[in-house]
Amino acid sequence: MYLEKINSPEDIKQYTAQDRKKLAEEMRQAIIQRVSVHGGHLGPDLGFVEASIALHTVFNSPEDKIVFDVSHQCYPHKMLTGRSQAYLSPEHYDDVSGYTNPDESEHDFFNVGHTSTSLSLASGLAKARDLKGTHENIIAVIGDGSMSGGEALEGLDTIGEMGTNLIIVFNDNNQSIAEVHGGMYKQFAKLRETHGQYPHNLFRAMGLDYRFVEHGNDTEELIRVFREVKDIDHPIVIHVVTRKGLGYKPAEENKEKWHSCRGFNIATGEKIGKGPNPYFDTTASYLLHRMKWDHRLAAIAAATPSNFGFTPDKRKEAGNQYIDVGIAEEQAAAMASGMAKNGVHPVFATSATFLQRAYDQISQDVCINNNPVTFLVTWAGFEAMNDVTHLGIFDIPMLTSIPNLIYLAPTSVAEYRAILDWSINQKEHPVAIRVPLPMFTDSDSPVQSSYDRLNQSLVTHSGKDIAILGVGNMYHVARKAAAHLKDKGLDVTIINPLFLSGLDTQLLTQLMDSHRLVVTLEDGVLDGGFGEKVAAFYGPTTMRVMNFGLKKEFRDRYDRQELAQENHLTEEQIASDVWDAFCQLK
Amino acid sequence: MYLEKINSPEDIKQYTAQDRKKLAEEMRQAIIQRVSVHGGHLGPDLGFVEASIALHTVFNSPEDKIVFDVSHQCYPHKMLTGRSQAYLSPEHYDDVSGYTNPDESEHDFFNVGHTSTSLSLASGLAKARDLKGTHENIIAVIGDGSMSGGEALEGLDTIGEMGTNLIIVFNDNNQSIAEVHGGMYKQFAKLRETHGQYPHNLFRAMGLDYRFVEHGNDTEELIRVFREVKDIDHPIVIHVVTRKGLGYKPAEENKEKWHSCRGFNIATGEKIGKGPNPYFDTTASYLLHRMKWDHRLAAIAAATPSNFGFTPDKRKEAGNQYIDVGIAEEQAAAMASGMAKNGVHPVFATSATFLQRAYDQISQDVCINNNPVTFLVTWAGFEAMNDVTHLGIFDIPMLTSIPNLIYLAPTSVAEYRAILDWSINQKEHPVAIRVPLPMFTDSDSPVQSSYDRLNQSLVTHSGKDIAILGVGNMYHVARKAAAHLKDKGLDVTIINPLFLSGLDTQLLTQLMDSHRLVVTLEDGVLDGGFGEKVAAFYGPTTMRVMNFGLKKEFRDRYDRQELAQENHLTEEQIASDVWDAFCQLK
Repeated sequence: MYLEKINSPEDIKQYTAQDRKKLAEEMRQAIIQRVSVHGGHLGPDLGFVEASIALHTVFNSPEDKIVFDVSHQCYPHKMLTGRSQAYLSPEHYDDVSGYTNPDESEHDFFNVGHTSTSLSLASGLAKARDLKGTHENIIAVIGDGSMSGGEALEGLDTIGEMGTNLIIVFNDNNQSIAEVHGGMYKQFAKLRETHGQYPHNLFRAMGLDYRFVEHGNDTEELIRVFREVKDIDHPIVIHVVTRKGLGYKPAEENKEKWHSCRGFNIATGEKIGKGPNPYFDTTASYLLHRMKWDHRLAAIAAATPSNFGFTPDKRKEAGNQYIDVGIAEEQAAAMASGMAKNGVHPVFATSATFLQRAYDQISQDVCINNNPVTFLVTWAGFEAMNDVTHLGIFDIPMLTSIPNLIYLAPTSVAEYRAILDWSINQKEHPVAIRVPLPMFTDSDSPVQSSYDRLNQSLVTHSGKDIAILGVGNMYHVARKAAAHLKDKGLDVTIINPLFLSGLDTQLLTQLMDSHRLVVTLEDGVLDGGFGEKVAAFYGPTTMRVMNFGLKKEFRDRYDRQELAQENHLTEEQIASDVWDAFCQLK
Repeated sequence: MYLEKINSPEDIKQYTAQDRKKLAEEMRQAIIQRVSVHGGHLGPDLGFVEASIALHTVFNSPEDKIVFDVSHQCYPHKMLTGRSQAYLSPEHYDDVSGYTNPDESEHDFFNVGHTSTSLSLASGLAKARDLKGTHENIIAVIGDGSMSGGEALEGLDTIGEMGTNLIIVFNDNNQSIAEVHGGMYKQFAKLRETHGQYPHNLFRAMGLDYRFVEHGNDTEELIRVFREVKDIDHPIVIHVVTRKGLGYKPAEENKEKWHSCRGFNIATGEKIGKGPNPYFDTTASYLLHRMKWDHRLAAIAAATPSNFGFTPDKRKEAGNQYIDVGIAEEQAAAMASGMAKNGVHPVFATSATFLQRAYDQISQDVCINNNPVTFLVTWAGFEAMNDVTHLGIFDIPMLTSIPNLIYLAPTSVAEYRAILDWSINQKEHPVAIRVPLPMFTDSDSPVQSSYDRLNQSLVTHSGKDIAILGVGNMYHVARKAAAHLKDKGLDVTIINPLFLSGLDTQLLTQLMDSHRLVVTLEDGVLDGGFGEKVAAFYGPTTMRVMNFGLKKEFRDRYDRQELAQENHLTEEQIASDVWDAFCQLK
């Protein structure tokens, strides 16, 4: 056994080729075993075992600094940098995150989870090194899928002008999360076919030196090349061809399916299902049905078609009305604006956290031009993803400060479907829809025939004294908190605000007749959120307002229930806090 | 005279080469004349006269659709599409904006002002055309400076996969606003030297067809090439070499100086000065002085060194401690994080409107990692730029919802300098500083020896009943409004909140002892802004709160004073509104 004895990269420096081969095999088995139980990324890590061994054999981390893009391929690196137990002992599986994490190890330099950032981050490490006058190697590891993101391309351009050491390991497995898309990938294929000789080379076109390594899963070949470029005096790209999923047959054969998972049966290759998502199912069935008769409708993905509920079969069904632009949210948003301007209605779906990458394009390309684009904002709310790099809690402040954009938070499948239909039929506004989380499917909020009357909230129960506005997913909590208050004899008004980008000022004014306390619930940060707008509306009046939501902070891998409790967001806490506040009013 | 008779592109289709030559001369003179009086962009438009004539001779706008990047080179296009009077008659100079504008003409497709968007927008027009089954040409015009932006590079990649008509006119004058930076520009130079034969070609590396046009200011050569590619069945890049500023000697000789201006004396080449900016002067002198002894300090520009007050001489003085990454704000922010991680303090300065382009990088690359980067946010507030594409009114919502980021709004040169110094010396936080507008230089807000105690607001006058919090530039208005209220016998408390990313809850709580109304003033949108946070804080209490700020809307070329009045932001209006509200409290 090798792996369990490795406490730092020093421990493998003297390994023989035979040792490394056995180590790789152990690491691969550990990855498969751990992911099968714990879930995580599989294909990217299986493909990068040999390269990680080679990097840590040749370079002296942490003095030499390795930056991983997205960093979902960092498991082998973690195994070799003092964290092997987290991949060998089930009781330690939770000791490490799924991404590089400076809190875990001095060998990790950044918390990373979004794509296409490694080149820019590494360029900063290198520039600082040069200003300080030290001489360590800076290495950026980037997968081919990540290369389609603008930040990576900007990084290449800057690095192409730098005259000092920076080694880019371009991990080319000809696969993004789904299949790769974009003109550069045609040319990468030709580079592979010609052993790196094809002249139309993105890296050389950016002014970079370049080297091709055909066998990117051959540790010894990689070591030879890394030794040759170590301490190089200028930037260079090492184009390494690897096989995503190598060593686990099902993952080699179906790269998209095995990019990541929640666990699986190693013997049968049966994955633990993600559970149904009625919202994604609704999106897919609505769009595919409509596309059959409406050729002026298009679905745009930025490498994550799952946000449409689009399996490979469904993408095929959508035909040329489906476009995947690669990991390029800026392009997706701006392209959508262009399509809308030329008479086609585009729907761009991505998770709240990745939509952040298109903030300026939403504002400038889409909203200043007021073009009718539909954005589907998935995985919003603290009960969605809980990695610090993938939080869905900033969408409300981000989107509701942009003029012209209508942001709606439905509360049920029926309401979601009606709003999606309305958004695609209208031509007046860019619209973003906060797709509810899959556990919240039914509500008593009535479906409207039209949402043309902007900012119209829905009063689903008329009470008195207290009104609770529950945003989207939190509408369900509002109802339950109201039930608790009912037990105490309070008949509170329940409101589904629906529109987050503006207030129903008429309703809010009316509430002043028979209410003294307005309560808002949202599952994102309070700062810049919906509740603050309500508080500001009532600021000059005697109405009391309480905003429930999240404290502004970055939290990693939190327990959802604990976080809710810390922020007083459980139905019981809300009812109790509201009751206390109301009693003080008397 | 040709120009005054041109009402649409149809009018020039039958022109002879001789006619076109004379037309170009007239257009060039009109541009020089208008910009000398009215101000605007000079170099980019002078360089694109011939290409605009050629485009409108060959293509049938608006059926064929031309999209301009940044669109500051669109004056010749506007002249040829029914708007020549706006370039000939001083009384009509204000009829048109400085950018393409669909409200002006059916020949303009987008309001554009940020860089690197044309390829993405055009890809959407083209995709929509294909879905609809029409056959018009889609043309994107993009300058070489714009090519360094990630959105443009993402666009190239998507277009490289498209199999239908899209014509990219790459306007290469080897100049951004300042000099070009980045590896791609070394290779563009080689393409120019080799008449397009150099193999390391960014466009071909993205899978695109390519053609080189050496004489980009030769209308006839351009017409020949455009005719050959008209109705082409796949995307192609036409690499057109032009001369920025052609036809006005000073502009040819100093391209950076004559990129844009506020007016000038044609005969002497003397520009109307921009007026002093004591904040930029302070930044430049502070940084340059410190860089002499502090080699762990760096200044990062994204193509706009003016935000540091860095003239070419000063950039030279900063030496390798100054980096211009090109028009690549994402790269700038992420590179800054990398530098901070490796022990160098980076200062990235850009205008509020362009900082939007790095939202995700600020959040993910910098703030999740909590790396000590200083952002200088220039031209924030509605009294800064007033083009709809360049508004500085969204920075507070954007930045104050991001955890870990400290956002400070100083009110005077002395306070700004102290905060800049503090930010560079500390290692705990990413910090953004809202650089005041140049007309607000002095305030009575005391300079602190440290700003380590976060969120500490400054009470500059203690009164009672009413407290006014004036954010940054608006602190000056707060003082004046307070003076008006003093005239009515009210001694109001005046507060410089200073920190926008958090509240001084201790102070706000204390205010409840002797105040009944808290007033906030800010010069950005109210939605998600500072005032709403104050209103939310007092929501559950009896304190009344009034928020003054801007309604959430996109306004173009507004009169600043009128906009202030519409939003009740003049000192008199504020004093009057507050007085009225206070009287009602009694």
